[in-house]
Amino acid sequence: MTTEHVIRLKPKTKPQAIRHGFPWVFADEVVTDRRTRAIPPGSFAVLEDPERRPLALVTVNPNSRIFARVMDADPQAQIDAAWLEARLTRALRLRERLYDQPFYRLVHAEADGLPGVIIDRFGDHAVIQPNAAWSDEMAPLIAETLRAVTGVGTVILNGQGRTRGLEGLSERTEVLAGTAPEAPIRVPMNGATYLADLMGGQKTGLFYDQRPNHAFAQRLATGRVLDVFSHVGGFGLAMLAAGAEHATFVDGSAPALSLVQQGAQAMDLDPDRTQMIQQDAFAALETLAAEERRFDVVICDPPAFAPAKPALEAGLRAYERIARLAAPLVAPGGYLGLCSCSHAADLTSFRNASARGIGRGGRRAQLIHTGQAGPDHPMLPQLAETGYLKALFFRLDG
Amino acid sequence: MTTEHVIRLKPKTKPQAIRHGFPWVFADEVVTDRRTRAIPPGSFAVLEDPERRPLALVTVNPNSRIFARVMDADPQAQIDAAWLEARLTRALRLRERLYDQPFYRLVHAEADGLPGVIIDRFGDHAVIQPNAAWSDEMAPLIAETLRAVTGVGTVILNGQGRTRGLEGLSERTEVLAGTAPEAPIRVPMNGATYLADLMGGQKTGLFYDQRPNHAFAQRLATGRVLDVFSHVGGFGLAMLAAGAEHATFVDGSAPALSLVQQGAQAMDLDPDRTQMIQQDAFAALETLAAEERRFDVVICDPPAFAPAKPALEAGLRAYERIARLAAPLVAPGGYLGLCSCSHAADLTSFRNASARGIGRGGRRAQLIHTGQAGPDHPMLPQLAETGYLKALFFRLDG
Repeated sequence: MTTEHVIRLKPKTKPQAIRHGFPWVFADEVVTDRRTRAIPPGSFAVLEDPERRPLALVTVNPNSRIFARVMDADPQAQIDAAWLEARLTRALRLRERLYDQPFYRLVHAEADGLPGVIIDRFGDHAVIQPNAAWSDEMAPLIAETLRAVTGVGTVILNGQGRTRGLEGLSERTEVLAGTAPEAPIRVPMNGATYLADLMGGQKTGLFYDQRPNHAFAQRLATGRVLDVFSHVGGFGLAMLAAGAEHATFVDGSAPALSLVQQGAQAMDLDPDRTQMIQQDAFAALETLAAEERRFDVVICDPPAFAPAKPALEAGLRAYERIARLAAPLVAPGGYLGLCSCSHAADLTSFRNASARGIGRGGRRAQLIHTGQAGPDHPMLPQLAETGYLKALFFRLDG
Repeated sequence: MTTEHVIRLKPKTKPQAIRHGFPWVFADEVVTDRRTRAIPPGSFAVLEDPERRPLALVTVNPNSRIFARVMDADPQAQIDAAWLEARLTRALRLRERLYDQPFYRLVHAEADGLPGVIIDRFGDHAVIQPNAAWSDEMAPLIAETLRAVTGVGTVILNGQGRTRGLEGLSERTEVLAGTAPEAPIRVPMNGATYLADLMGGQKTGLFYDQRPNHAFAQRLATGRVLDVFSHVGGFGLAMLAAGAEHATFVDGSAPALSLVQQGAQAMDLDPDRTQMIQQDAFAALETLAAEERRFDVVICDPPAFAPAKPALEAGLRAYERIARLAAPLVAPGGYLGLCSCSHAADLTSFRNASARGIGRGGRRAQLIHTGQAGPDHPMLPQLAETGYLKALFFRLDG
């Protein structure tokens, strides 16, 4: 793949950020003319500084606010199977150090040197989300290299979600290699078993990012627990595996609750130890309060209420409301876990909204732990502000 | 103990913060006259809002910038043995949930409802730091109640450190109950054994706050590791327990390195697996670089370079320098852990200083984990900005 394109930083744009590892060039930072605007999305180009000295090899997408993403600090780099193999091998080595079993996020985009690419591994299966144009085009080669590096049999392309829209990519799901699984895949994690639907699930079928927060919740697990916005049962099944007596799962989605049930069966749990409530979470919290139900641990892990800036105020109000409705359900001296996966809500805003909600719910609290995504979700230090996942664990008053 | 004192918030001071759990009243927020300035430090008082309605029971110290600290939301509360017992029992319950063995921070000041009081437990021994005047005076009753609640035999008062100075308290160390240990105490943590010198050590003899970060470092442990500013060997001994082949410990203090050695002996480690370097850490890093030594994991856990605002700029330069000197010592694809226990350096500043230092050390990095103090160091959500301990784990380029 030869790189015939060249783009150049504007005269007053400082190239230091790129030299120090910042991976993005925004549209207003490059000299754009008819030629650059006509570069096909996903093309590779040499990025030059304002004095026309080569800075890096980038991938260009004139349709995206992120006009160029750094592929390699070497402007001469060739993006081919050998290059992909080196990046994937490096990513694999970290996960093999961290995890005993091959269930993890294998590639976390920029931080793993593959801009815009998410790859989750489920044992013998991998799911790729190619969220930048270059990777959408090169997905078959990525899949082939992935099989060679990791030995997985099946590679699925999951082209859903908001990020692809921002890149001008259409939605599609496709089996790139091997055969599509006929049933949900069993995923062992923290001593629990989850069922991941790789073909029809949200995102790649399972949220690996909460793994350390599930593990923290296990240290609190006792008695009766409540898992609100349970999805496939991440927190609740983990706490049952760690000795909680009973878990109530709340989710609006019947398919999600069916996966919880299948996970509980795979774990050989007595059916008396679980309850499924398929209902809007806010309504369910109000019902549980009206019934004066109390739980030793309550966890709320809602979808992103504030995915981007314009939704921030409304999102924070929603987080506060969750906290206000959940706090009264916590038994005296019990625990409340509140999560946010909103990019736009930073830790301080989310913590304040949560603390306000707990106070308005009539309780006082200690904050005992602040959790984040696990280490299979590395970050570039230069982009670390975007650490999106926050899990706050409170102990409430006695 | 009857409360004869009364203090009042100034007319324009909003009492909501106190009602919502903020625990401090600053000197410029209360009506001060000859009477209030004459309240003996450590006295209890009823705090009133500007309309003279009682808000809370507080402890007053006219010598401190924190003029009053909330003891109880109930203005009628009696601070006596029963009150202390309730607070200590509540604190104990959390730690008993979290830890299998009685080695932890038992009381973390305001967040555990005992303003200014730190209590660390080492099995049958406890060390109290009464860093607010009320607790310095009531230390004997706290010690007695502590023995009753936890069953510890020995209680030591460790009155050292900067915080006491801010409260106008003098330095002293005293055995409040039981007998002083004749030798350092063995502390089991994360599968390692540490030796804590309760009578002569820094702080209370051991830093429990790093426990989860030691545990994270264990997941990276392999080959040769370097523990800079090792103190009693927190990171290095943990990594040896987790399978690292060899650890080099650097500390300026001979007594600290002797405790490392005793810990290694208690763990029955082959002496060939450890090396002690008693030297200034900056000088040692330069020497190791000159010798072209390389380590699979390098951890730097320096003392607070920026304990307070005026030291911030110099402190951040020192953190950057540590990162710059340490990065070249990390083998290709190896790991670098950088810690800060500086209140004044927030996470973003510390992360930026560290990333800059790594870059100037000629390396690129992924940030794989950001650790904090463990859950035996709870925070009030209202004071959570002060989360002082930050541990950044990077993987460096191959």
